[in-house]
Amino acid sequence: MQMYDLINKKKNKEVLTKEEIEFIVNGYTKGSIPDYQMSAFLMAVCLNKMNHEETAHFTMAMANSGDILDLSKVHGVKVDKHSTGGVGDKTSLVLSPMVAALGIPVAKMSGRGLGHTGGTVDKLESFPGFSTEISSEQFIENINKIKLAIVGQTANLAPADKKIYALRDVTATVDNISLIASSIMSKKIASGSDVIVLDVKTGSGAFMKKYEDALALAKEMVEIGTRAGKTTYALITDMNQPLGRAIGNAIEVKEAIETLSGNGPKDLLEVSLTLASYMVLGAGKAKTFEEAKKILQGTIESKSALDKMAEFIRAQGGDSEFVYNPELLKTASICYDVKAPCDGYVKEILTDEIGMASLVLGGGRVTKDSKIDLSVGIIIHKKLGDKVTKNEPLATLYANDDDKRKEAKKRIIGAYVISKEEVERPPYIYSIVTKDGVKRA
Amino acid sequence: MQMYDLINKKKNKEVLTKEEIEFIVNGYTKGSIPDYQMSAFLMAVCLNKMNHEETAHFTMAMANSGDILDLSKVHGVKVDKHSTGGVGDKTSLVLSPMVAALGIPVAKMSGRGLGHTGGTVDKLESFPGFSTEISSEQFIENINKIKLAIVGQTANLAPADKKIYALRDVTATVDNISLIASSIMSKKIASGSDVIVLDVKTGSGAFMKKYEDALALAKEMVEIGTRAGKTTYALITDMNQPLGRAIGNAIEVKEAIETLSGNGPKDLLEVSLTLASYMVLGAGKAKTFEEAKKILQGTIESKSALDKMAEFIRAQGGDSEFVYNPELLKTASICYDVKAPCDGYVKEILTDEIGMASLVLGGGRVTKDSKIDLSVGIIIHKKLGDKVTKNEPLATLYANDDDKRKEAKKRIIGAYVISKEEVERPPYIYSIVTKDGVKRA
Repeated sequence: MQMYDLINKKKNKEVLTKEEIEFIVNGYTKGSIPDYQMSAFLMAVCLNKMNHEETAHFTMAMANSGDILDLSKVHGVKVDKHSTGGVGDKTSLVLSPMVAALGIPVAKMSGRGLGHTGGTVDKLESFPGFSTEISSEQFIENINKIKLAIVGQTANLAPADKKIYALRDVTATVDNISLIASSIMSKKIASGSDVIVLDVKTGSGAFMKKYEDALALAKEMVEIGTRAGKTTYALITDMNQPLGRAIGNAIEVKEAIETLSGNGPKDLLEVSLTLASYMVLGAGKAKTFEEAKKILQGTIESKSALDKMAEFIRAQGGDSEFVYNPELLKTASICYDVKAPCDGYVKEILTDEIGMASLVLGGGRVTKDSKIDLSVGIIIHKKLGDKVTKNEPLATLYANDDDKRKEAKKRIIGAYVISKEEVERPPYIYSIVTKDGVKRA
Repeated sequence: MQMYDLINKKKNKEVLTKEEIEFIVNGYTKGSIPDYQMSAFLMAVCLNKMNHEETAHFTMAMANSGDILDLSKVHGVKVDKHSTGGVGDKTSLVLSPMVAALGIPVAKMSGRGLGHTGGTVDKLESFPGFSTEISSEQFIENINKIKLAIVGQTANLAPADKKIYALRDVTATVDNISLIASSIMSKKIASGSDVIVLDVKTGSGAFMKKYEDALALAKEMVEIGTRAGKTTYALITDMNQPLGRAIGNAIEVKEAIETLSGNGPKDLLEVSLTLASYMVLGAGKAKTFEEAKKILQGTIESKSALDKMAEFIRAQGGDSEFVYNPELLKTASICYDVKAPCDGYVKEILTDEIGMASLVLGGGRVTKDSKIDLSVGIIIHKKLGDKVTKNEPLATLYANDDDKRKEAKKRIIGAYVISKEEVERPPYIYSIVTKDGVKRA
């Protein structure tokens, strides 16, 4: 088999076989196929597409390119959730303890990554002493005992994806549904869960700005997951404004704890409950969506989810007192209100810009080696459709540097579009994709 | 300017500006743009195309990437001819002395290249002592004095093309009209002639198997040449069978000399005369095609073209006695007739296979470092439409190794398709493309 011929096949819109796709992925991973051939191939894929079968083969080849997390010693059906990323997205922090509180094992492997804020691993480090550097034995033991554990992503998880992603990133071959879907799913499949619930965000703060693109990605991922023998659900949720009110690290943890305590923002609660309901359904712990949602709500009312959070933090070396006293979580020294420049209604929020403001404050990583300031962040007071009066606070900034505070302020002001007329609020959730099709939420 | 954005533009079917194309070509040539970005770009070009303007910019950027041959000291309008390559194509050897004999300067820069036989430079080395390693002063002096000189291609002629071509060759990005046309034309433009006559071959032994593809390439090259201020003509000529009867090096030189002596095969004479006529027209030495052809025929009748050949060979160190006594040219030791397996008419010749037979005998280069055996080759006795009787010779092989002779024989037999019914002969020339359009020949 020659890479040249396989590039040529895709250039001529032909369909590649499983063996051919494995040859490409394995050859590139081990270095026998050079970057310049792979990038030509990836461009041909972007322009001529891969079908569902090719995409599934591509995904499995990447998943099998490194270690596959062995969760066979975990009792019960293992469930996992993945979000395509958004601003203020802390659903993992909310739903994981709820689901675990129902006795369903949540085995999370999580990377740090780049972004407007840190990843779940970073956020959890707001708890003094908390660590995800635990052995795989400890990880399995914790899941079996308390049903919830999180471990940092091993270096050798889907190395093919890592290498291919880096190449796509510099060759303008990022925005192809097959390549995006297979990148996400290869890691999820290698992470070993039986049930995968995907949160596909759409809107001004999402990778997929348009609903149609989010839907196509959701369908492709459900297709891949199903072919890989995983129960897979994808929810398409709104990202035309930050989820909840907090954007940052410690302040997002605080908001998650408030939500688990029954005092969280409605959108965050609703999205978390819905995603969690599909995890519960997938695990077979409820017969209907309504039943799943009801028992999950029970974990908040009974505080069993909050207790689960404390138990989990403690088990990974963190100070669980902070769970019950979230005001102990460290926030930045400068606290500044960004005021509304005029009267009106919030018509639009350029959510990416809010994310950039968080990044400017130091809440996220620009490069792999950036150090995150866990204490900074933004609290959004006005959301889409809200009435605003001139000089009323739109948002509060938590900063440790006044120059950064000024730059963040500018971005927040620029991110708000205020209109004279009343504005309709977007829904929280648009639709649910399962192997049986698409259902509007 | 960022290469990433330019790849993205082409991926999105946008048109690139002159500056953007220069950035790409210059950046890649000097190494600031890596192979993997260039190959992604080239694949995007293959699938989304470049328009005429982009193609012309791409060509000029490659032409300007190295030395431009300075022919300003040559008196008169300089003319050049280029063939896209075929089996038995020795028109350069025939038409150059004819055109020079009319006082028109023919300044040829020629590479060695890979192929079924050697290039013009290799073929001419069949004359003992002949060399193309002459200084540029000597080159210019020879052209001014005898109107014909040939020099080996300088290492620094269109280096961008050399580098891009090598990358296309391993990334399945060869077959795009813009890239093929710009590769050829960049070298022709850097070679400094005022008039460029292109011989675009089509058929079983050509790069462009289909007439439509040849026509598209011809149009693109005429467009590029015209935009570069060069008088450009392209002839689309037949390559469904070898041109003339000889395929090799010394034996092709012999056939060229026979043609200059008035005893050559009709197809070779006709194609050479037609190409040469456009060179004469471009140089302004005739008013009509018919007039040009007539005065060119005169150079054969008067033997002035043959004398010009001898003068040229002598001026570059060769033994001109061989021009008048071509039987002196060395031929291989084994002379073997390949016999017809049955009666009938030659319906088809797989011309590429005839070329491969020449390569097998040692007449061409497989790699850059291969040594060519100038004495081997094939004389074709039966051409398309010819009647054949069983055991009559189809071709004669000249070989220096009996194993190679056997392999070549097998290929020759396999290349002939014999039919019971009479077969029509293809035309020599299909059409002529000028800046004013296409004319059937």
